[in-house]
Amino acid sequence: MSSPAVEYARQNQPRFLAELKDLLRIPSVSTLPQHKTDVERAAEFIASQMRAIGLEHVAIIQTAGHPLVYADWLHASGKPTALCYGHYDVQPPDPLNEWTTPPFEPTERNQNLYARGAVDDKGQMFMHLKALESLMQSGAGKLPINVRLLIEGEEEVGGESIARFIRENPQKLKCDFALVSDTEMYAPDLPTLCVGLRGMVYTEVEARGAKVDLHSGMYGGAAPNPFVALAQIIAKLKDENGRILIPGFYDRVTTPSSEELQDWKALPFDEEDYRQSEVGSSELTGEPGYSVAERTWARPTLDVHGMPGGFVGAGAKTVIPARASAKISMRLVPEQRPEEIYKLFSDYVKSIVPRGIQISIRSWSLADPIIIRTDNRFVHAAKDAMKEIFGKETVYIRSGGSIPVVADFEKHLKVPSVMMGFGLPDDNLHAPNEKFHIPNFYRGIESIIRFFQLLSS
Amino acid sequence: MSSPAVEYARQNQPRFLAELKDLLRIPSVSTLPQHKTDVERAAEFIASQMRAIGLEHVAIIQTAGHPLVYADWLHASGKPTALCYGHYDVQPPDPLNEWTTPPFEPTERNQNLYARGAVDDKGQMFMHLKALESLMQSGAGKLPINVRLLIEGEEEVGGESIARFIRENPQKLKCDFALVSDTEMYAPDLPTLCVGLRGMVYTEVEARGAKVDLHSGMYGGAAPNPFVALAQIIAKLKDENGRILIPGFYDRVTTPSSEELQDWKALPFDEEDYRQSEVGSSELTGEPGYSVAERTWARPTLDVHGMPGGFVGAGAKTVIPARASAKISMRLVPEQRPEEIYKLFSDYVKSIVPRGIQISIRSWSLADPIIIRTDNRFVHAAKDAMKEIFGKETVYIRSGGSIPVVADFEKHLKVPSVMMGFGLPDDNLHAPNEKFHIPNFYRGIESIIRFFQLLSS
Repeated sequence: MSSPAVEYARQNQPRFLAELKDLLRIPSVSTLPQHKTDVERAAEFIASQMRAIGLEHVAIIQTAGHPLVYADWLHASGKPTALCYGHYDVQPPDPLNEWTTPPFEPTERNQNLYARGAVDDKGQMFMHLKALESLMQSGAGKLPINVRLLIEGEEEVGGESIARFIRENPQKLKCDFALVSDTEMYAPDLPTLCVGLRGMVYTEVEARGAKVDLHSGMYGGAAPNPFVALAQIIAKLKDENGRILIPGFYDRVTTPSSEELQDWKALPFDEEDYRQSEVGSSELTGEPGYSVAERTWARPTLDVHGMPGGFVGAGAKTVIPARASAKISMRLVPEQRPEEIYKLFSDYVKSIVPRGIQISIRSWSLADPIIIRTDNRFVHAAKDAMKEIFGKETVYIRSGGSIPVVADFEKHLKVPSVMMGFGLPDDNLHAPNEKFHIPNFYRGIESIIRFFQLLSS
Repeated sequence: MSSPAVEYARQNQPRFLAELKDLLRIPSVSTLPQHKTDVERAAEFIASQMRAIGLEHVAIIQTAGHPLVYADWLHASGKPTALCYGHYDVQPPDPLNEWTTPPFEPTERNQNLYARGAVDDKGQMFMHLKALESLMQSGAGKLPINVRLLIEGEEEVGGESIARFIRENPQKLKCDFALVSDTEMYAPDLPTLCVGLRGMVYTEVEARGAKVDLHSGMYGGAAPNPFVALAQIIAKLKDENGRILIPGFYDRVTTPSSEELQDWKALPFDEEDYRQSEVGSSELTGEPGYSVAERTWARPTLDVHGMPGGFVGAGAKTVIPARASAKISMRLVPEQRPEEIYKLFSDYVKSIVPRGIQISIRSWSLADPIIIRTDNRFVHAAKDAMKEIFGKETVYIRSGGSIPVVADFEKHLKVPSVMMGFGLPDDNLHAPNEKFHIPNFYRGIESIIRFFQLLSS
């Protein structure tokens, strides 16, 4: 099964890892304005890698937000064209005190590389670059298929710029399929293709009561309390069984096919181990009557991420804050539509605002839910390539996360996406101590090499 | 009506104000550990004022928390002894960006002095010192009555050290009444004695779900969300009419006498003006069937002050936080007992914890509600002194706030408190742009001078 390109990748593993660490040292947190220049540095880092590999038309494309990085190599006449997608921005690292080693000082422990962005998505995006380098170096400056790369810096903040770029430039991105490595394997050593994503609507509801912060002794009992109001609203959004109470919310929800549900039942899953080792809560929650796979992949849900406002320091401050907010998101499943769900949400919230409170609602990060058909040669080649490298049959799963750009590829480029991910369930995405399992970094590079080679034949 | 002491006070107004500004420049925020040395500096400032006045036994008394400052003058044989109480600590100044001028740079505008602590309580506590200075300077080094002073630095964080000191040293604090200037006047130019205070229980409820922060895409639908859980709990604590739903919560609540309710009805109050000018909300809230005075003075209530945890930055972060908290306080009225209410609260909260969530609850700032009897010579002299200085009949009101030390004076020293306050309803206590109306600072000093003189005759 080996090939010169795979050999090249194996021989260069230490350098590939060292270069990934260089990228991880750049704190390219897209949501925090103070990291704007870091985000730009990360884009420049990617572009210089692309140039070194020998890709063409390397460009940092300025946008209203953070830049896109583009490159292509289109000389494999008669062969398919891949669009390699990834993102170089990362989530904020807080809470910092829960990291064993600092988030932007990549550290190896037990075959894992710990750093913010290690797996989401710098490490996985970097696999594409290193697979292309290996193919190019071992192939006399030629690739087995045509490639375009489009790497964004706003995935963690909604990806508006790439969405607009795809919408406005479909001809510049002409391709046969997209390759996305931003998902995870179902279990260690189990090659996995992701064929479904939940969509998302992220909102912030601001509640305003008094015009200024008031003393709760003087005014408590007469002045509206924005936190109490938000609590009353949130309690009416989701019941204690995890059922969302927004009228019409479930109207378009579809059920997976019985075949897909059957496949999920065959996956190696120990609910008690998942509860203890992954979640660590006293009990799992969610809708009764649905498996964990269904609850996290095929059922919509609603979460609250933070409630800014008021007094959050140590000790006691007796303030009735003038305003408070709740960051509330919903994950959507086929055939829910984010714009429609946002309207149902905001209409409902407006209808249950307690007395004395004014609210305003805004949204970002609207993403369509996605189902990928598995009956195409791209998915088949990916399945075979991963099986070859891992020595096990590849499984199809869905993910509960959202990758909005996959819907854009489908809608505007009319191409399917191959979601070949190498993360693991305990990689701590968006959390302290994010990591990437280093063997998966190497096997990911090899799988992509073989995937492209299989598509060429 | 004038006296040499009042004359002295009038002649020294500019210096008194300048010295108060010096005290206000010290950011003695008792709840924030980084201000510990500022709190100590404020204590030292008070002690040096006491020494300069000619008070005796001036002492900075170290405690487990912030120091107490004590002084006395006990040479008015046969005359009553006052215990002058005040506090030199202040609330945190945040949100800083809502202050017109910086909180620790005292600034005069429109006859008001703006600074954190201007009225609560540095400015009011300082009136006692300046009244004593005026009496001493104009009285050949003698005071008309005996005085002890006990000034604390933990009022804004629960006052545990002074409570312990009073409990353990009643003989050192022997007196006939306590004078407390930490309340407000009902209206500008309307002399007011406060004869009732609400009690308090301040709690923090921490909810824990998963063992680490989780990605809401991957785990949303299976992992418990601590914010949703807290919202569900809070929504079960208080209904939308302001009624508290904790079983047994109202069992000991007493109703004011019909005479007291009658007096409240006679107070100058325009509910619509109060709503617009003081609160500024679209509507007032609280229990139907009760006047605003009843709701804020004679009815218990519950407020949420902040909900630390999760993501509170700008933009979107899709985290299910491992933990979140709610700072929740209750204001109590006679005959509710804080320890009992805390137990009812925590038992009830524990009984409604949603699935998958662990909680822990802690409390501080337990304070008894207080009613002061008005049929004693101290209240009568105070009433007459204020009437003389303001030229209007003094009214009796209650306050919705809590001054726990007043209950300690009653319980351990067996003395009534005279709550002679000179704040105004729009002084922004605990909020940005706290102020003290400068004419009230001067009239307060004069009222206290006359009060002590009347008690001597």
